[in-house]
Amino acid sequence: MPSANPILLPELRVMLAEGDTAGLREVAEELHPATVAEFSEGLAEAEIWQVFATIPVERQAEIFPYYPLSRQVDLLKAADRRQLGPLIEWMAADNRDDLLRELEPEFVEEILPLVAKAERHDIRLLLSCPEDSAGALMTTEYASLPADITAGEAIARLRSQAPDSESIYYIYVLDPERHLVGFVSLRDLILAKPTALVGDLMQRDVISVRIDEPQDKVVEQLARFDFIAIPVVDDQNRLVGIVTHDDVLDAVRQEATDEAQMSAAIAPLGEGYLEAAITSMTWKRGVWLAILFATAAVTAMVLSNWEPAESQLWLVAFIPLVVASGGNSGNQSATLVITALSTGDCRLSDWKRILKREFVLGLVLGAILAVPGYLLALAYAPTPLQAIVIPATILCVVLVGALVGSVLPLLFRSIGLDPALMSNPFVSAIVDVVGILVYMGLAMVVLG
Amino acid sequence: MPSANPILLPELRVMLAEGDTAGLREVAEELHPATVAEFSEGLAEAEIWQVFATIPVERQAEIFPYYPLSRQVDLLKAADRRQLGPLIEWMAADNRDDLLRELEPEFVEEILPLVAKAERHDIRLLLSCPEDSAGALMTTEYASLPADITAGEAIARLRSQAPDSESIYYIYVLDPERHLVGFVSLRDLILAKPTALVGDLMQRDVISVRIDEPQDKVVEQLARFDFIAIPVVDDQNRLVGIVTHDDVLDAVRQEATDEAQMSAAIAPLGEGYLEAAITSMTWKRGVWLAILFATAAVTAMVLSNWEPAESQLWLVAFIPLVVASGGNSGNQSATLVITALSTGDCRLSDWKRILKREFVLGLVLGAILAVPGYLLALAYAPTPLQAIVIPATILCVVLVGALVGSVLPLLFRSIGLDPALMSNPFVSAIVDVVGILVYMGLAMVVLG
Repeated sequence: MPSANPILLPELRVMLAEGDTAGLREVAEELHPATVAEFSEGLAEAEIWQVFATIPVERQAEIFPYYPLSRQVDLLKAADRRQLGPLIEWMAADNRDDLLRELEPEFVEEILPLVAKAERHDIRLLLSCPEDSAGALMTTEYASLPADITAGEAIARLRSQAPDSESIYYIYVLDPERHLVGFVSLRDLILAKPTALVGDLMQRDVISVRIDEPQDKVVEQLARFDFIAIPVVDDQNRLVGIVTHDDVLDAVRQEATDEAQMSAAIAPLGEGYLEAAITSMTWKRGVWLAILFATAAVTAMVLSNWEPAESQLWLVAFIPLVVASGGNSGNQSATLVITALSTGDCRLSDWKRILKREFVLGLVLGAILAVPGYLLALAYAPTPLQAIVIPATILCVVLVGALVGSVLPLLFRSIGLDPALMSNPFVSAIVDVVGILVYMGLAMVVLG
Repeated sequence: MPSANPILLPELRVMLAEGDTAGLREVAEELHPATVAEFSEGLAEAEIWQVFATIPVERQAEIFPYYPLSRQVDLLKAADRRQLGPLIEWMAADNRDDLLRELEPEFVEEILPLVAKAERHDIRLLLSCPEDSAGALMTTEYASLPADITAGEAIARLRSQAPDSESIYYIYVLDPERHLVGFVSLRDLILAKPTALVGDLMQRDVISVRIDEPQDKVVEQLARFDFIAIPVVDDQNRLVGIVTHDDVLDAVRQEATDEAQMSAAIAPLGEGYLEAAITSMTWKRGVWLAILFATAAVTAMVLSNWEPAESQLWLVAFIPLVVASGGNSGNQSATLVITALSTGDCRLSDWKRILKREFVLGLVLGAILAVPGYLLALAYAPTPLQAIVIPATILCVVLVGALVGSVLPLLFRSIGLDPALMSNPFVSAIVDVVGILVYMGLAMVVLG
């Protein structure tokens, strides 16, 4: 931003105190809706409704979705019920869907009768789509045209459709049964001769997603084709909505945060770090810490069977090192496979190539780490021969880490579980236990 | 996609073998450029140039950027130099910039003279922007207008500008010195009366980024305001380019993958998992495994000072458990702080709130894990009093993990290092060593 925006919370408060309706209206009308939401977020719910009272409901509906979802819920609950019907009608369908999913079903049933009947149908359609599907991400507001009109007529029709559609930059061409037969960009319409037929201008090679396909698919297709929006169809190829670029960007950013948290063994917070309640955070971290603790307890139980002789006591110092070597290697492999699966870089069917790679890499990396491992062991082991236990264990655990780290995400994906959430604790559980067993076993073989 | 596209690699090969120029042209002209690139990627470089020979250079330039970057480089190197000038001229400026950054400077200097002078200027401007800046992500092709013309005249002008601009959906309004004074959307122009002045239609509250600002800022602004493109200005607020939504989406996805890899202690691959050479992968994983090994070696050296008496030997079995508890807690905290910093959820200036949260959470989570820790210890310790060493250590290491895990990313960010890359090894190094020291210390105090 070239210059900081001069309107700030204290000034809003002064205007509210003075009843300066004209000033409030100017702020709420002139700035970008996101900016209005940002500046007014510090106000109390009743004060925000006071600001909203100065502007038409269309504008309210533009600003409203820019508040954090939890705030939107608070605002709805603090509102006069009669205000809600028009606001909900005017909100973009996808933003509205996000909001209604946050509310208790009873509250939704209470406010739905306030909404016009046509909109109610759209609301129920979107709410019925599963959380992670293309349908949950889409809006039902799009621009569409038949194929048999001219570019000039098309632009005239868009003038009347536009206020209702989130994006008029792609216009979808439908046959009379609403089957998706092509699309034109607004750019193409503008550049075309006004007498050209939409049917001749349109691209017939339409990329679409089915309403029940997962959001990953939507992201992958939109990113690959650089679309501003991607059409969503039902199983008969009838257009039911579009997913726009801004919602995909939000979904990708949220997904990246969720996956990072999951791979650090945290149930996704789903809200800002500083906003999350301590109790919710305790649960989301505690439950996975407890699971990891349980796996570490298995390691402890295995290790408790080891009764080192006096001459073997030097091996104790190396326990964290050999366990960590396996864990680090497993963590690397699991993360590489998880990210490759989630970006579409590789698929389940590539499992043979993946395992081959990880086998080779596990051997190479294990061999590389075995060298400093041997040198370090020489300083503590009674004889150079006995020191061999350390590099031999390192080689094994790094290899086991790479294999377990790559197999588990593939396995979880194949049975429909989220690899990012599940892999970490199980990789560390298996690799730690195997690491200790290998260590004890080799110690027995080499040291007798 | 409702139906799989029927054109496949073998069919392309047959057409090439039969010299079916018309067939090749049809494939290369009719499908989406991304699809053409995908289907032809399996061909040899010379074969791809044969396909390209059937279509005009404008179309070649549309398809070309959809090949993976490494393939684009191979294609350039395999090409007749005379073909390159026009192709590079026609490519979108940002795609071209991505490609030229992959080439050796000597090769760039060799092909630049083949490019028209006006384009050469743009190329040098983009190449001069630092890797991670707004400038490196932008394109110099945008639509602009003066404020004092009508909507009707504006649309007529766009008809002539459009073929050169990557996005005509936002049109930037410039004064005679090219200062950015506002913008109109194509939608607003279409919906306006043809006689309305651009200066009256335009939004004056323009959000822009400076050419030297980091890409994170670009992503944050574009995501917050749901823009299709965001303008890039120099330090005089003169428009120099735009960053479009598709490039931001690509950057966000790449960044997410890079961060996931860094947090698993892997130098970002920067290419697909299956494409990366084994040697490059060995290096990118090996270097961090070696650093983590060195930190584990410190733990081993500290631990080697411990000479457990016969009655203390049961403590050995719990070494991996106490080390892992600290590590898991530290990993959670570090990941939460890193993702919160990178999404803009919290800033460096929030450090007091962050540390307070982590202190409370560390205590609570440590206390929770101490309970099963004590129960497990009772099964192995000679007396219930001695068993207290385990829960006391767990409480300490979980707390230390939470604090170190949150302090280090803040520290690295404040001195300008990437928190995602640096935090993991240092968190584990410090937490492991502190964990072992606390364990040994408490064992000495409690067990004598």
